[in-house]
Amino acid sequence: MVNQVQTVDDTWRRCSKSDSSGASNSGGESSKESSRSSTPVLDTDRTDRLRDKMRRRTESGDHWFSLEFFPPRTASGAVNLISRFDRMGSGGPLFIDVTWHPAGDPGSDKETSSMMIASTAVNYCGLESVLHLTCCNQTKEKITGYLSKAKRLGLKNIMALRGDPIGTDWEEEEGGFNYATDLVKHIRCEFDDYFDICVAGYPTGHPEAQSYDEDLKHLKEKVDAGADFIITQLFFRADTFLKFVRDCRAIGITCPILPGIFPIQGYQSLRQLVKLSKLEVPEEIMRVIEPIKENDAAIRNYGIEHAVGMCRMLLESGEVPGLHFYTLNREVATMEVLRQLGLWIEDPRRPLPWAVSAHPKRKVEDVRPIFWASRPKSYIYRTQDWDDFPNGRWGNSSSPAFGELNDYYLFYLKSKSSKDALLKMWGEELTSEKSVYEVFTSYIMAEPNQAGHKVMCLPWNDEPLAPETNLLKDELAKVNRRGVLTINSQPSINGKPSSDSIVGWGPPGGYVFQKAYLEFFTSSENVTALLQVLKKYEPRVNYHIVNVQGQNTTNAHDMQPNAVTWGIFPGREIVQPTVVDPVSFMYWKDEAFALWIEQWAKLYEDESPSRMIIKYIHDNYFLVNLVDNDFPLDNCLWQVIDDMFELLDSFYQYANTPTALM
Amino acid sequence: MVNQVQTVDDTWRRCSKSDSSGASNSGGESSKESSRSSTPVLDTDRTDRLRDKMRRRTESGDHWFSLEFFPPRTASGAVNLISRFDRMGSGGPLFIDVTWHPAGDPGSDKETSSMMIASTAVNYCGLESVLHLTCCNQTKEKITGYLSKAKRLGLKNIMALRGDPIGTDWEEEEGGFNYATDLVKHIRCEFDDYFDICVAGYPTGHPEAQSYDEDLKHLKEKVDAGADFIITQLFFRADTFLKFVRDCRAIGITCPILPGIFPIQGYQSLRQLVKLSKLEVPEEIMRVIEPIKENDAAIRNYGIEHAVGMCRMLLESGEVPGLHFYTLNREVATMEVLRQLGLWIEDPRRPLPWAVSAHPKRKVEDVRPIFWASRPKSYIYRTQDWDDFPNGRWGNSSSPAFGELNDYYLFYLKSKSSKDALLKMWGEELTSEKSVYEVFTSYIMAEPNQAGHKVMCLPWNDEPLAPETNLLKDELAKVNRRGVLTINSQPSINGKPSSDSIVGWGPPGGYVFQKAYLEFFTSSENVTALLQVLKKYEPRVNYHIVNVQGQNTTNAHDMQPNAVTWGIFPGREIVQPTVVDPVSFMYWKDEAFALWIEQWAKLYEDESPSRMIIKYIHDNYFLVNLVDNDFPLDNCLWQVIDDMFELLDSFYQYANTPTALM
Repeated sequence: MVNQVQTVDDTWRRCSKSDSSGASNSGGESSKESSRSSTPVLDTDRTDRLRDKMRRRTESGDHWFSLEFFPPRTASGAVNLISRFDRMGSGGPLFIDVTWHPAGDPGSDKETSSMMIASTAVNYCGLESVLHLTCCNQTKEKITGYLSKAKRLGLKNIMALRGDPIGTDWEEEEGGFNYATDLVKHIRCEFDDYFDICVAGYPTGHPEAQSYDEDLKHLKEKVDAGADFIITQLFFRADTFLKFVRDCRAIGITCPILPGIFPIQGYQSLRQLVKLSKLEVPEEIMRVIEPIKENDAAIRNYGIEHAVGMCRMLLESGEVPGLHFYTLNREVATMEVLRQLGLWIEDPRRPLPWAVSAHPKRKVEDVRPIFWASRPKSYIYRTQDWDDFPNGRWGNSSSPAFGELNDYYLFYLKSKSSKDALLKMWGEELTSEKSVYEVFTSYIMAEPNQAGHKVMCLPWNDEPLAPETNLLKDELAKVNRRGVLTINSQPSINGKPSSDSIVGWGPPGGYVFQKAYLEFFTSSENVTALLQVLKKYEPRVNYHIVNVQGQNTTNAHDMQPNAVTWGIFPGREIVQPTVVDPVSFMYWKDEAFALWIEQWAKLYEDESPSRMIIKYIHDNYFLVNLVDNDFPLDNCLWQVIDDMFELLDSFYQYANTPTALM
Repeated sequence: MVNQVQTVDDTWRRCSKSDSSGASNSGGESSKESSRSSTPVLDTDRTDRLRDKMRRRTESGDHWFSLEFFPPRTASGAVNLISRFDRMGSGGPLFIDVTWHPAGDPGSDKETSSMMIASTAVNYCGLESVLHLTCCNQTKEKITGYLSKAKRLGLKNIMALRGDPIGTDWEEEEGGFNYATDLVKHIRCEFDDYFDICVAGYPTGHPEAQSYDEDLKHLKEKVDAGADFIITQLFFRADTFLKFVRDCRAIGITCPILPGIFPIQGYQSLRQLVKLSKLEVPEEIMRVIEPIKENDAAIRNYGIEHAVGMCRMLLESGEVPGLHFYTLNREVATMEVLRQLGLWIEDPRRPLPWAVSAHPKRKVEDVRPIFWASRPKSYIYRTQDWDDFPNGRWGNSSSPAFGELNDYYLFYLKSKSSKDALLKMWGEELTSEKSVYEVFTSYIMAEPNQAGHKVMCLPWNDEPLAPETNLLKDELAKVNRRGVLTINSQPSINGKPSSDSIVGWGPPGGYVFQKAYLEFFTSSENVTALLQVLKKYEPRVNYHIVNVQGQNTTNAHDMQPNAVTWGIFPGREIVQPTVVDPVSFMYWKDEAFALWIEQWAKLYEDESPSRMIIKYIHDNYFLVNLVDNDFPLDNCLWQVIDDMFELLDSFYQYANTPTALM
C-alpha cells in the first residue's frame, strides 16, 4: 500500500507550516484515506479526487462537462436549486461549482450561503463540487476558518480567486491577500494537499492586468503555487481560447485548462455580464442579436447554436478535454447544448441502487437500510455525524445512534409542494379512513383524485413512483384500496444483468438480485389476520410489525440484518447495498409515524375531522414490513395479503351470518 | 447486548482470586466474546459454548453422542488418530474428549501429548473438545500453567479428575489437590467462567469411597463447586445408570449426566478395563463371553448387540439426553452401535463450504482464500497467530502476514502415505514431464497408473477427489493429459438449494452460488498461448499467472478479492466464504511451488533424472488460476484451455510445414 502519487508541482510545500491551525495535519489524513483497504464497490470514480478523475477522463480521450451555479437569494430559491442539482446531476457532470458572494454572508450556515449550497450538493445530491473562495480584504484567520469549515462539511475542491476589491481605492497590503496566488499558497500551506485547487484564466487577459503577457505570468505563478487546473473566463470565439492555451503551454503551464462556456440566454443578461467582465462582444454576434433583442426565444436559440458551434471547434481541436458551463442557474440552454454535443448522458447505470453521497467520509459507504429508500436526504442527515460508514456489511457495529429528526421542516427535506398543492392532492377535507386509502391509490396509479388533482407525492415519497415500483402498480393499487397503505416496495429479481435499464446498478458484466419487499401501514384488525396468515409462510417470509408505541412483533433475528439487494460482479466481492435491519427499523418507525402528523395532519385545523382521521391512523395503525426470502420463486407477498383479506372476509361473513341459520 | 446468562451455581465465585495468574481475567474476555456483534453465519452451534449446545439439544429432545479417545504413544499413532478424528467427526459427535496420561508428559508440546492431541482436534479438525486434567500430586502453579496453555490453544472445556495417586501410600495434603472438587474450585477461581467443566460420576460408587451415598455426596460437592455436567464410569446394565441418576436427582444434582458406554470389543481389553476400574462384569455377560473368548469377531458382535440394547433402554427412559462412548481409539464397534441407534448422521449440510475450526478466536471466521481448499490444515497453521479473522468480507485489512511454512514435515500436514507408497503412486522413476502428466491424470480418474498402483493423493491433495470435483472429472483428465496440471477447481453454480447434498452448505432455505474456478501448473509455452487466448475473454475471465520467481501477470485488481462462492439465506446478510485473493495468492504460490520439491522431488536421489524432471517443472512452469465471472452461463474455462491447445496446435502445424510448400 503506497500513498497516492503526488502529481502536483510541490514548490508550495516549501512554505512554513502555521502551528495555529488544527487542520494542518490534513495531508496526513488524506494519505491515510488513500491507503484504505479496497472496498467491494471500488469505483475509482468514487475514491479518486477531482484532479485524478480529470486526468483519467482526459487520458481515455473521454470528453466531459462541468456546471457553474451561484447561490440563491431566498430559501425557496435554494429548494429549487437543490432540485436542479438533482436533475442536472443526472446528466453526468464531472463536477459543479458554486460561486462565492462576499456580500451574501457566503461562509455562514444560512441555507442560501455559498458554503451551505456547496455542502448540500456534495452531501445530499452526491455531486463532486468546487467551492469558490475570494480572498480580497480578508484576514488569514477568516480564510482559514472558511477552509476548515469547508473541509468539515466534506468539500474537497476550492476555486481560489482574488475577488473584486470593495471600493475603488484598493491597494496592495503587505503580507495580506493581494492576489489569488496568495490564496493558493495559503491553502497549500495550511491544508497541505487536502484540497484540489482551481484558478481562473483570462483568455483575453485580466481587465486590470498591465498586459496579456503580464497576466499569463500571474497565471503561471498561481499554478506554480499549487493550483491543479484552470477554468477560463467566458469568451466568444474558439480561437480566442485556443490561442490562450497555446500561450499557456508555451510558458510552461501544463495543467488542464477548461474553457468557460457561456450560452447566450438573453439580451439583458448578456449586456450585464459583458459589463461586469469588461469583455467585448464581437461584431458578428452583435449583428445577429441586435435585430432580435426583444425576442427571448430567438436569442436563446441563437445562443445555443453559437455555443454548440464553438464547443464543437474546441473539442475537435484536441486541446479541450472538458467544457465548463456558466449556467446562470438555468437548465434549458445548457442542457440543450450538451445534448447536441452528445455530452449529456443520462446513464441508467448507477454505482449502487441508491445515490451515493460525495462526502469523503462516506467514500466507503455501500450498505444502507431499505427504509429510507424514498427519503435518502433524511438518511444522510440522520447519519451525518457517523465517523464510519458500513463497507461491505451492515452490522450492529455499523449502526451507531441515528441523529434526531426533530425539525420536520428541516430544510433539505422540505416538500417541494406548497401547503395549498398538498391539500389539493391529499384532500381538502377527509371524511373517513377510506378517503386516505383513496389518496394512496391515486398516488400509486398516478391518476387524479376525486377532486381531479393528480397525487404526485406522499409524506413518505416526495417523488412520483420509481420506474421499478411501476412494475408492481396494479397489485399495489389493489391492496391500497383496501387499507394496506404501501410506502415502500421492491420486486424480487433473480439475476438480471447489471446493465438492466430499470433494476440494474454497479459495474458492467455483473448480475443484480433482490428479495421482494413490501412495507405498509395497516389497521390492527388487519394485523391480527396477517399474523395468523404469516404462520403458513415460515420461514420463507420475514416480518417486522410495530405500532407508534414501539410494540414490536417479528420472526427475524433481533440483531441480524437481511440483505434484500445484492450484486455479483467480475473480480469483486459481493456487494449488498440494501438491507432490512431490525435496529434501524425502530428509528425509521419513529420517522415514518411522525410524518403522518408533521406532513399531513398539520395541514388541517386543530380538532378538525380531517386532522382527527390522520391522528387516528397515526395512533392505531401498525407499520409492517415483509421480506420474501425465496427470491428465485414468484413473489409470495401478494398472496400473503390476499390470504389476509380472505381470512378477514370469511370472518366477517361468519360474523354476519344470521343466527337463525346457525 | 447483555452478557451471557450464568446458569451455573455460583458458590465457586466466592473464592478469593489469585493475583499471580495472568489468566484471571478470562471471565471478562468470555463475556466480551458473547456480546460480539452478530455474524452472517451466526450458527448458534458455532458461537455457543458446550453447556449451551447440550442444553439446546436436550430441550429440543434431540439425542446426541460424544466420543472419548486416549493420546497415542507414537507420532505415527498420532497421525492415525487425527485421521480418525476427521472420519469420526463426520458422524456428528457433540464433542470428543482426550484423556490425561500423567506418565506421558501430557501437558507438553510433543505431538503425542494429551494437550496437543486435544488442541489438534479443536484447531485442525474443528471438533468441540474436552481435555481431561488430573490434579493428584500436582502443584497449583503446574495446574494453572496447564489451564493457561489449554486456554491459549483454544480449548474451552476441562474434565476435572483427581487421577490415580502415584504409589499406594497416598495421603491428603493440606491445601493441596486431594479431590476433583479442589480442581473444580481452582479452575473457577483462577479462570472464572471461561471453561466448561465436566466431572466423573460412579454409578456403583467410586471404588475408594466409603460408601455409595458418601460418593454421591462428593459428586454433589463437585457440581456445587462449579461443574457443568457429569460423565459416568462405564457400567453393564441400564438399570445401574438409571438408579444412579435418580439418586443424584434426589440429592439435588440437576446438571446433565451422561452415561459412559463401553462396547465390549474383545476379551482381553474387557478384563484389563475391569481390573483397572475395579468393576464386576455381571454373570449374564460372562456366561456369553467365556465360551467365545478366542473368537474376536464373535465377542465384538456380542459387544455391539449388548451396547445397542442397553443404549436403547437408556434413551427410552427419557433420562438420557446423550451417550458418551469409550472408544478405546477404535472406530468400528462404536460407529456400528451409533448407526444401529440412528445417531450416526453424516450430515451433508455444512455450515460453510470449508470445515470450520473450533478455536474460539476463529468463531467469526467466514471467509477464506480458495487456494488452500485441499490443504485446510496448512491454512489454519499459517494463520494461527492472527488476532482477527475475516467476518463477512475479505480485505487487505483481514490478511495480515501469513505464517511461514518452512518445515514441510510439519506434523499436522504430514502425508498419511509412506515414502514407499508415494513412490508407487507417483512413479519409482520418471522419464519425462509426460510421466508427471500421467500421474495427475491417474489421480483425477482414480485409476491405477502404468505400474498398476492407484494414485490416491498428490502433493497438493492429500485426499481423493472431492465429490464436487468429480463432476468435472472428464474435462480435468483431458487437460491434465496435455500438461495442464490441475490442483484445484470448482464448477459454476447458479443458485442450488443450500440443502443440496453435493454443493450445498449453510442454513436451510437458502441458495448457494459459485463462479467456476480452475488452478493449474503449466509450461511457459502454454502460458504464452494462454495469454493470447485470454484477450478474447476480457472481462469475463480473471486470471493470475505466476512463476516460482514471482513474475506475475494478472488482469485482476491488485488488491481486490473476487468472491467465488457465496450463499443467500433467509433473514441474513450474504455469506461469501471463498474468495480468490491476489495478496494471499502470492503466499500460496510459495507453498504450491515448494510442494513439488519437498513432497515429490525429494523422494528421489539427488541428481537423479526423476528429481531433475520435477525440479525442471518447479523452476520453469507457471501457476495459473482462472475465474469465470459469468456464473449463470456455462463454464467457459474449458473453452479457454481448448482454445489454448488449438492455438498451440496451429502453431506447431505451421512450424512443421516443410519449407518447400511455403
